[in-house]
Amino acid sequence: MGSEIPDRQDLLAARSRIAHVVHHTPVLTSRLLNELSGAELFFKCENFQRMGAFKMRGASNAILQMTAEQRNAGIVTHSSGNFAQAVSLAADLLGCPALIVMPENAPDVKKTAVLGYGGRIIESASTPQAREEMAKKTVEETGGSFVHPSDDIDVIIGNSTAAQELIEEIPDLDVIISPVGGGGLLAGTALAANYFSAGTHVYGAEPTGADDAYRSLRDGIIHSSINPDTICDGLRTNLGDSNFPIIRELVKGIMLVDDHATIESLRLIFERMKIVVEPSSAIVLASVLANRNQFRNKRIGLIISGGNIDMSRLAQLIY
Amino acid sequence: MGSEIPDRQDLLAARSRIAHVVHHTPVLTSRLLNELSGAELFFKCENFQRMGAFKMRGASNAILQMTAEQRNAGIVTHSSGNFAQAVSLAADLLGCPALIVMPENAPDVKKTAVLGYGGRIIESASTPQAREEMAKKTVEETGGSFVHPSDDIDVIIGNSTAAQELIEEIPDLDVIISPVGGGGLLAGTALAANYFSAGTHVYGAEPTGADDAYRSLRDGIIHSSINPDTICDGLRTNLGDSNFPIIRELVKGIMLVDDHATIESLRLIFERMKIVVEPSSAIVLASVLANRNQFRNKRIGLIISGGNIDMSRLAQLIY
Repeated sequence: MGSEIPDRQDLLAARSRIAHVVHHTPVLTSRLLNELSGAELFFKCENFQRMGAFKMRGASNAILQMTAEQRNAGIVTHSSGNFAQAVSLAADLLGCPALIVMPENAPDVKKTAVLGYGGRIIESASTPQAREEMAKKTVEETGGSFVHPSDDIDVIIGNSTAAQELIEEIPDLDVIISPVGGGGLLAGTALAANYFSAGTHVYGAEPTGADDAYRSLRDGIIHSSINPDTICDGLRTNLGDSNFPIIRELVKGIMLVDDHATIESLRLIFERMKIVVEPSSAIVLASVLANRNQFRNKRIGLIISGGNIDMSRLAQLIY
Repeated sequence: MGSEIPDRQDLLAARSRIAHVVHHTPVLTSRLLNELSGAELFFKCENFQRMGAFKMRGASNAILQMTAEQRNAGIVTHSSGNFAQAVSLAADLLGCPALIVMPENAPDVKKTAVLGYGGRIIESASTPQAREEMAKKTVEETGGSFVHPSDDIDVIIGNSTAAQELIEEIPDLDVIISPVGGGGLLAGTALAANYFSAGTHVYGAEPTGADDAYRSLRDGIIHSSINPDTICDGLRTNLGDSNFPIIRELVKGIMLVDDHATIESLRLIFERMKIVVEPSSAIVLASVLANRNQFRNKRIGLIISGGNIDMSRLAQLIY
């Protein structure tokens, strides 16, 4: 592997580095969903992670690698989703400012969550260009350090700790499936399997309406989803230079899942497992159910990436 | 204690008797809810139990004590709630018929659940008298065995296995709180604490609008709630002769909780713990939050009794 790919020791170091600020999340099983899928499923519940998503792992790992001076100047990111909350909480726990660039039209509930974790919001226009420029400007003005939500090697290594825990608790997995949006979780998951569970195949589950990772892997270059159309709001982003080489080398394949199948899995997880997950997480169960023959009798780890969804939104999707 | 109260060996026997048909459910914690309550909370998640509630334990234990002949004639109960589903599933797993007396105006979703687990529905008029008569008639006609949802010593002993597991996993609990409706769960919980965790105080949490257990304990006789008014649909029933002596002897007190506090806890559990629980379960968290001073710094086990609630109902209660 190329020198840019982190090694086993990098992954282990991240796990102990962030242990005091993240939860070791439980692995749940469901007899009924095993029967329904014909496989043996192990749900790694990052919806139970602090602030409700795996993003806490990557954010903490990135911030903890900075010098005290860097931290004091503040952590800058652009996100209107879970990474905004993760940076806010991690920065707060580690005693430094969080400066979150969010589009001015971001929903109030997202802004409230960031403020609740102690983050400061910097508004930008809603285009990707505008928010990147605003982040750059914020870094220049404050001397803060920018952390990208998925295209950052320390974030990827932090994310790997979820699969590290899963592999330690459930040995001999045939398969691990993670959602793929920006690619930071999938790359981290693939690294963990590569070093700690040789023989385990890692797949990404991606919405049909935002199939950039599927096309990127097929063609060997990073494609974008121009107008992503999916209910999986965490999975509308594109791969980046830090995670694409890892995914290309270590991921077995990307499975496309349409939103109807994801909604059906969202309902199953709510009604049968009694846990709250985001559509971006339900997609991994949907990818198994859509490929029953391929996965029959396999031991499958599913990374349930997060559970930050409004009750009203959930009710609206399911009914 | 009187001879009618089961002994330690009865409780242990039940645990191994039902082990092959029930789940050993996980215990979850929440740093945020610990901070909010000022106590250390351990949630025994019977919402993850098979069919979604602790009722599976008591139903299984009662059925497993019957002779093959008794079982073959069928299990009869009256319930429109979780016990109907529990008897249906347990009977199905153990290969015998389940005959469930339900009011003719029971919601379709409840009927569908019973049918889905293989139960047969026998309709009755909706008064308690009518449904008891119909159950009696069904027993006479079929030779089946009646199992009461809460006022049955084998059901109580079966229910005790939830607290047995909790105590084994989390030693040195200062307090265990269970909801109290018909009293079968609270009695079982109190028995488990009595034999396996001396020094742990057991409390019941009861809706203000169905305060019969509170009044019964205060006055030393079983009172009824004539027109119970609470969103906790599992807690509208009254204590019975089998569980009242146990509760009177072993339970430290009943805490009354109003529905507004229960709804607030329902929202907290959904948004912060990311798990799906019934109002009848959320009441135990509400009882801690309503009595913060009493419980400060205590290690508290909370029996989360079940998670069978429609998404639309949950959204309606929370928003």
